[in-house]
Amino acid sequence: MTPHESYSTGETRGAQQMARGLCQVMGREISKGSFNTNIRQKITPSGTLQLPWSSINSVRTMAVLPWPFSSQPRDFSLPNSSWGSDMRHLYEHYNSQCEVETEEGEKKWGVWRRLPSYNRSLKYATGGVYLSKIIQSKARLFTRNIREQGAAFEYVMFVNKQEQKCVCVFQAGHLLEGPPGHVHGGAIATMIDTVTGTHATYLSGPVMTANLNINYRSPIPLGSTVLLTCSLDKKEGRKTFVSCQVTNTDGSKLHTEATGLFLSITMGHLL
Amino acid sequence: MTPHESYSTGETRGAQQMARGLCQVMGREISKGSFNTNIRQKITPSGTLQLPWSSINSVRTMAVLPWPFSSQPRDFSLPNSSWGSDMRHLYEHYNSQCEVETEEGEKKWGVWRRLPSYNRSLKYATGGVYLSKIIQSKARLFTRNIREQGAAFEYVMFVNKQEQKCVCVFQAGHLLEGPPGHVHGGAIATMIDTVTGTHATYLSGPVMTANLNINYRSPIPLGSTVLLTCSLDKKEGRKTFVSCQVTNTDGSKLHTEATGLFLSITMGHLL
Repeated sequence: MTPHESYSTGETRGAQQMARGLCQVMGREISKGSFNTNIRQKITPSGTLQLPWSSINSVRTMAVLPWPFSSQPRDFSLPNSSWGSDMRHLYEHYNSQCEVETEEGEKKWGVWRRLPSYNRSLKYATGGVYLSKIIQSKARLFTRNIREQGAAFEYVMFVNKQEQKCVCVFQAGHLLEGPPGHVHGGAIATMIDTVTGTHATYLSGPVMTANLNINYRSPIPLGSTVLLTCSLDKKEGRKTFVSCQVTNTDGSKLHTEATGLFLSITMGHLL
Repeated sequence: MTPHESYSTGETRGAQQMARGLCQVMGREISKGSFNTNIRQKITPSGTLQLPWSSINSVRTMAVLPWPFSSQPRDFSLPNSSWGSDMRHLYEHYNSQCEVETEEGEKKWGVWRRLPSYNRSLKYATGGVYLSKIIQSKARLFTRNIREQGAAFEYVMFVNKQEQKCVCVFQAGHLLEGPPGHVHGGAIATMIDTVTGTHATYLSGPVMTANLNINYRSPIPLGSTVLLTCSLDKKEGRKTFVSCQVTNTDGSKLHTEATGLFLSITMGHLL
C-alpha cells in the first residue's frame, strides 16, 4: 500500500543485507567473461576486427546448429530460426550500429553494443552455503531455462554508453501465458528486472535489485515482439535509478512502464 | 521514478484498455470450472463428502503417475515427489484446515480452501485476434510451463474467506536462478503477481493487474521453500489493493514485500 516507501532507509538496509554474497543477476550478463567472449568472436587471428554477425543470413546458419550438443556455450542473444520479422528487423537495426566503418575502410566500435547472454555465466557459483551440489550443477538462468527456441523468452539487449540508454528486443513465446492469449505479468516483470538490472550494472558496476514499481497499461499478445527502452534517471551514492518503458516495435503503443532502484555492491560482497 | 503515480487516473484508464478481452490470469485458477473439479474430487458417487487428499501418502501415489500421458489434467497444487519436507509440512498444515469433522462425524468445509492449479484452464481461449492457431494450441501458463517436477515453480495456494487472507507455499526450483545460487527477482515477481492476483480475484471477481510495487529485502536461496502471505488492504470502486509478504517458512525472515493494485473487469470484457 505504500509505494512511496520504496526508497526509504529501511529498504536500503534490507538491500544491503541482500547484497551479501550476491550480485545482481545481470552483472553476469555483462561480466568480464561474457564481454571477452564477445570480443574474441570479433577478432581474427591476425588481430583485425571482423563482423561475423553482420549478415543475418550467416547468423541464422550458425544459430540453427544443434546447440545443446555443441561444446561451445550458446549465446542466446544471436538470432535463431524462431525469430519473427519484427525481432529480426530490430536486431539488424541496432546490430548495424555496433560497428562502423571509418574513412580508411577499417571497422571500429559504434555507439551501441550487443550484450551476449548465456544460460549460466557463473558455472561454478557456490551460491551460499545453502545449496546442494545437485541444485548448483543444474541451476540455470530463469530467462534462459527453456531449450526449445521461440517457446519462452527470446531477447537481445543493446547498450549505448554515450546516451546512457539500453534497449531490449523481446519476443514472447507461447509458454509465457498469463491472461488467455497474452503474456503473464510476471514474465513482463522478469524482462523489466533483467533489462533495468543490466543497464544499472552497465552504468554502476555490480548491483542488486532493491525495488521494482511496475504499471501495466496494455496487455502484450502472446507471440508478439516488444521493445524495452531503459534510461538512467539518476545516481545517488550507491543507488542507481532506472526507468523502463515496454512498447510495441514502433514505440506507438505503451504496454508497461516501470522504475527500478538498484544498489551497488562491492566485489567483497561477492565472496 | 514516480511510483506515486501508480494509482493515478492515467493508470486506471490504461488498465481499462488492458481489460478488453482479458481477465487476470488468476481468474482462471479459481474459475468455476476449477472449483467444480475440486469439489467433484471430494464427493463420492453416493454423494457423501470424502477426504481423498487427507493423507499425504495417498496424494503422493496419485501425483507421481505419469501425468503427461493421463487423460485427466494434472492439478499442480497436489504434492509430488519433488516437494521437500518444508513444502509438505506447510501443505499438510493448511490442507488439514480445509475440512473439519462435525460432532456428528460428518465432514464440512473448514476456513481454508486449497486452490487447484492447471497449466491452462481455458483450453480453447481465443486470446484476441492476434494469435496464430499454433500459438493458441501450445500456449501454457507461465508458472506451469516446465514438466520436470521440482525444477521450477512448485506452489500451492490456500484462501481464507473469513479472514480475507491468502497464503502460498512456494518451493523454488533450480531453473529459477537469478543471482548465483538464488531466485531471480522476476521469478519472485511472478509469484507475487500470481498470488496477489488470485487473492484479488477471490475477493472481487475477475481482475487485471494494474500495478505491482516490489521491495526486495533479502535474497531467496535456490531450492528453498518460502511462504507468501496476502491480505486485503482496501477496496475502492473497481480497485482492489492487496499486500503481500514473502518470508521463510516460520515467518521470521522477510525476503520480499509488495503491494498490488487490481482493477475489476466485467464479464463483458471477457468476450
